[in-house]
Amino acid sequence: MDNRPIGVFDSGLGGLTAVKELMHQLPQESIIYFGDTGRVPYGTRSNETITKYVFQDIRFLLNFDLKLIIIACGTASSVALEKVQKFFDIPIIGVVEPAVEAAVKKSKRKKVGIIGTQGTIQSRSYENKIREKDPEIITYSQACPLFVPLVENGYIDHEVSRIIAKEYLELFRQQGVDTVIMGCTHYPLLRKIIAEVMGPQVELIDPGAETARYVRDFLARRNQLTDDNRIPQYKYFVSDSTESFSRLGSLFLEKEITNSVEKIDIEKY
Amino acid sequence: MDNRPIGVFDSGLGGLTAVKELMHQLPQESIIYFGDTGRVPYGTRSNETITKYVFQDIRFLLNFDLKLIIIACGTASSVALEKVQKFFDIPIIGVVEPAVEAAVKKSKRKKVGIIGTQGTIQSRSYENKIREKDPEIITYSQACPLFVPLVENGYIDHEVSRIIAKEYLELFRQQGVDTVIMGCTHYPLLRKIIAEVMGPQVELIDPGAETARYVRDFLARRNQLTDDNRIPQYKYFVSDSTESFSRLGSLFLEKEITNSVEKIDIEKY
Repeated sequence: MDNRPIGVFDSGLGGLTAVKELMHQLPQESIIYFGDTGRVPYGTRSNETITKYVFQDIRFLLNFDLKLIIIACGTASSVALEKVQKFFDIPIIGVVEPAVEAAVKKSKRKKVGIIGTQGTIQSRSYENKIREKDPEIITYSQACPLFVPLVENGYIDHEVSRIIAKEYLELFRQQGVDTVIMGCTHYPLLRKIIAEVMGPQVELIDPGAETARYVRDFLARRNQLTDDNRIPQYKYFVSDSTESFSRLGSLFLEKEITNSVEKIDIEKY
Repeated sequence: MDNRPIGVFDSGLGGLTAVKELMHQLPQESIIYFGDTGRVPYGTRSNETITKYVFQDIRFLLNFDLKLIIIACGTASSVALEKVQKFFDIPIIGVVEPAVEAAVKKSKRKKVGIIGTQGTIQSRSYENKIREKDPEIITYSQACPLFVPLVENGYIDHEVSRIIAKEYLELFRQQGVDTVIMGCTHYPLLRKIIAEVMGPQVELIDPGAETARYVRDFLARRNQLTDDNRIPQYKYFVSDSTESFSRLGSLFLEKEITNSVEKIDIEKY
């Protein structure tokens, strides 16, 4: 038993899609969330800058006594996970490995498509990890830079998102991809449109949901799950003002955020 | 005569649309440009964060002996201009005042539309300045948060940009607006689509071009124009890696960037 909270961070508020899954699958776990809203997005920045930001995000979270840190951001996981795993003592889990495990299991035709930010796609993190696990799988990658702004501006079920999804996913359709990793926290909100474009037989992998499962198994194996009787505590921190947090935050969390949100100065870390 | 360079900064590379106009209208002036690419965009951040960033941007530029600083960013000009003008001794010019002067002159029906980022629209900077100059003018405002990502991803002449422009500009059309201020550096790249949607009789005001004219008059009046025989020097600085600079940079500058680009650590300032 280990009743310490789990730390989760993301470049912004998209990581709350992973928090939603954690709350669902591990309802007794307490969570400390940090969203780097003052420097979002990470997906278009250089590896050097992303890595610097990820170190700062983790240093901030280490103000708390945590049992585990989750990098909920696809870009940050792709670019910086190995570096921070080597540097810090606390277990750090990214979203890439859990998503890849699920995709490798589910793909029958061994053709997997990966969508993500520019940073994620350029890192080839998903492809490399898939190759490690099953060298027979052929991967196809596509950066989808407009998906994040479309989601954040509420174009969830809109003609424009459909047109853009068709453009982005055209290659996957042509190649007969049967499994698509939605490699960015925002993309599960476009699941309906992505499913429409790809067709009903194609598996869509949500890295946030897979990571929640992975963390559940990880903690269970190490006997580190929180006591079932505990009432979980949720705390949210952001690096820009807390005002916009509630609107976007509840979009990703799919419920009202009633807990306290606090602004911190991430550049100090 | 004052041969010192002009400093120009922006939240990213969009400000190069203003630099292009400066080069055109003041071909002998040297320019030091800073693009805060490590923290772009400003348009969705809080006033507090934007103001902090603008102070840092100016402190960095003051490493050079400049005769004038231009805030090429609509959001930064809208939110922080007055504060920095009070704080620093060097003349600082934003894009709002020059654009408003042009709009007030050109609007015959006294109905002016303003498009910009969320930060610019919420600040009401353009509206307030218009009211100061001509209280009879009625203003209409519309945040266009998808225009920046559309431009940056090359959707300059695309069906999707047209659909979104129609949504954003519907109110202006209904109200018979005859002058539109394109209150963000990126928007002039969508000029063709905006003109199509608004119709040929509507005046489109480019704040970058108006600011270049304003600066020319300002320097001429103070006898501070650079000697005509001078060969201008251009230097570019960014806060993220210099790699992506050439692609996006030449999109906005509309020519190849052959000068040196250097990365700096803006958080030090």
